[in-house]
Amino acid sequence: MVKFANRMSLLTGSEIRELLKLTSQPDIISFAGGMPAPELFPVEGVKEAAIQTLNERGQAALQYASTEGDPALRKHIVARMEAKNGVKTDADHILVTSGSQQGLDFSARVFLNPGDVVLLESPSYLGAVNAFKACEPKFIDIPTDDNGMIMEELEKVLASTENIKMIYVIPDFQNPSGRTWTMERRQKFMEIINKYEVPVIEDNPYGELRFEGQSLPSLKSMDTKGLVIFLGTFSKILAPGYRLGWVCAESEILGKYNFMKQAADLQASSIGQMETAKFLDLYNLDDHVEKIKAVYVKRRDCMLKAMEEYFPEGVTWTHPEGGLFTWVTLPDYMNAKDLQMKCLDKKVAFVPGGGFFPNGGHENTLRMNYSCMPEEKITEGIKRIGEVIKANMK
Amino acid sequence: MVKFANRMSLLTGSEIRELLKLTSQPDIISFAGGMPAPELFPVEGVKEAAIQTLNERGQAALQYASTEGDPALRKHIVARMEAKNGVKTDADHILVTSGSQQGLDFSARVFLNPGDVVLLESPSYLGAVNAFKACEPKFIDIPTDDNGMIMEELEKVLASTENIKMIYVIPDFQNPSGRTWTMERRQKFMEIINKYEVPVIEDNPYGELRFEGQSLPSLKSMDTKGLVIFLGTFSKILAPGYRLGWVCAESEILGKYNFMKQAADLQASSIGQMETAKFLDLYNLDDHVEKIKAVYVKRRDCMLKAMEEYFPEGVTWTHPEGGLFTWVTLPDYMNAKDLQMKCLDKKVAFVPGGGFFPNGGHENTLRMNYSCMPEEKITEGIKRIGEVIKANMK
Repeated sequence: MVKFANRMSLLTGSEIRELLKLTSQPDIISFAGGMPAPELFPVEGVKEAAIQTLNERGQAALQYASTEGDPALRKHIVARMEAKNGVKTDADHILVTSGSQQGLDFSARVFLNPGDVVLLESPSYLGAVNAFKACEPKFIDIPTDDNGMIMEELEKVLASTENIKMIYVIPDFQNPSGRTWTMERRQKFMEIINKYEVPVIEDNPYGELRFEGQSLPSLKSMDTKGLVIFLGTFSKILAPGYRLGWVCAESEILGKYNFMKQAADLQASSIGQMETAKFLDLYNLDDHVEKIKAVYVKRRDCMLKAMEEYFPEGVTWTHPEGGLFTWVTLPDYMNAKDLQMKCLDKKVAFVPGGGFFPNGGHENTLRMNYSCMPEEKITEGIKRIGEVIKANMK
Repeated sequence: MVKFANRMSLLTGSEIRELLKLTSQPDIISFAGGMPAPELFPVEGVKEAAIQTLNERGQAALQYASTEGDPALRKHIVARMEAKNGVKTDADHILVTSGSQQGLDFSARVFLNPGDVVLLESPSYLGAVNAFKACEPKFIDIPTDDNGMIMEELEKVLASTENIKMIYVIPDFQNPSGRTWTMERRQKFMEIINKYEVPVIEDNPYGELRFEGQSLPSLKSMDTKGLVIFLGTFSKILAPGYRLGWVCAESEILGKYNFMKQAADLQASSIGQMETAKFLDLYNLDDHVEKIKAVYVKRRDCMLKAMEEYFPEGVTWTHPEGGLFTWVTLPDYMNAKDLQMKCLDKKVAFVPGGGFFPNGGHENTLRMNYSCMPEEKITEGIKRIGEVIKANMK
């Protein structure tokens, strides 16, 4: 009889991906995905980049290429790492991956034996937890507040726990909470990390999507010991369809990620990388990011305003300064999964928050995405959810 | 201090990929890679497919999509599985992967715990061995001859070994040997497999590249118990630059591969899949494969003829009826790695065969690729290798 590996008993389909199948119907108002607004994709620019790439370097675009990634694309990534994340690096410290999800998978495979411990924020990104599970670790989630991870709690766990092999964090506009770590927390975090010398996976898909307030330095830019592995992606600033992200890390660590890339799928798409590099040659990505932000900030404002109007007392939510999500906390007695079923009946969707806690609990929370719906649908959707919440208040 | 997972001590850079960096210089005659001939890539057709895809469905092409893969592409794959591999299936039994390398990686992760046993041909594909190593299995390689895997040896091992969790085979124009299993071996193999009920990974990147002789049915087409997992790819029949392959398997098994795909990188490139599907709508891939074969058969003939002329007695090689490779056996006392260094001095490259044996040995073998060099260079390169061999004969 066919037997599967132990890890397979831990892996299940992501609730979000399953939900996305349901919510792809056009009459559903969906706050469930974490998708960028497709009407903002620079389709004509991508077409021009594709044509020029195939005209100029068609054979190379269709052939195998190096595991590390296209040199022209890595050069653009290096420039962006400095301009946007304050990280001075070079192409030898960049590996191009199939989206930052692959960076998450590789992080687990590079650092984790079964039973090893991963620290992460409470809540943390469901897709990361799912990727890490394939390496059979234990998860310890560290409490957070509106200023980010609580450092006293982190230090307590580091001081008292064996076999902590990595710490996974999203300091900017976190998925799912929308929160951003303060400067003070970042500094304290790096002090603690330097003391305990544990590798840190800094996942930063949303950092460039800041609507207001001051940009804060990435952890990687504050990293003096080569402990931070930075994961970046083009998914939220250009488009996810190419599946292109990157890892930036010091040489020994990045070498391990390179070996994983070879074993996993040899290399990212040659044509996808070259077209993306060409797009970045031809157009100013910063201008495009400004356009995205101008739309998203209005949608965030619209969602927060509608929540203010339609959600009853006893329900709270975060006020993100950027990114794609806000995080809602219902009264303790309320279950977001029950609520979800009732909301789906009313053609409106969100993601229940329980899945973002690897050790369970917190069933009274939910994640709301505002990037992907026009304002009138946001207002209408929040109104419907508000009605369902009210009908379920004690 | 940073500690890596146990698996990382087993992973090293692929010798082939390292060698490819050396051999990318234009004055090197390289028989080292397994690359298709880039001058045959249908660049104009791909450009047309890209333009039409972005004109018609640009937003969808740049957005996230389902883990299973683009419906239009999976429909094409289903048709091809029947026409070329005799497998009647449907889109629900296809998962699109990032090249068939990713299918290899997932196979290991779906089936293998550390210490489990993988059976494979002796020799077998280096890139598969490397992918499997990340799951820390033991390898038992089964002897082969010109007719394929030797079934008596396979049955002996199956009867006497615990924890065999999968069997990895390349029955058509094998990498590295160029050999093809006879019909009799295929039938006997399926009898044995049905008795022992072990999952089989049938890797078939080259099957369509048959120059002569009769096509033989895939193992998957003879599979009555859902034990065969078929790995296909567009890399050798269209182009590797998109990194698109597929897994075809029965539902429970494919479900596990789908979970792995979600965890590993969510999905294959939306734009790459849609452009490939569009290419297959617009053009007849069979016509393109015929063009490729017409060129490759001449290169194979040229290489075999040059070996006949320039290689001394005591050296033997296989006579592939298709695919990309021939496999050379030197006198026992000769070491292909030493030979490689001397040949690189003369600006000609191949891959020493030792790496294709997961348990070592066989250092007097080497793999030769003929698909990627024009005929005059093949003749000249073989002449140079012949001279080096002669100079090292006892």
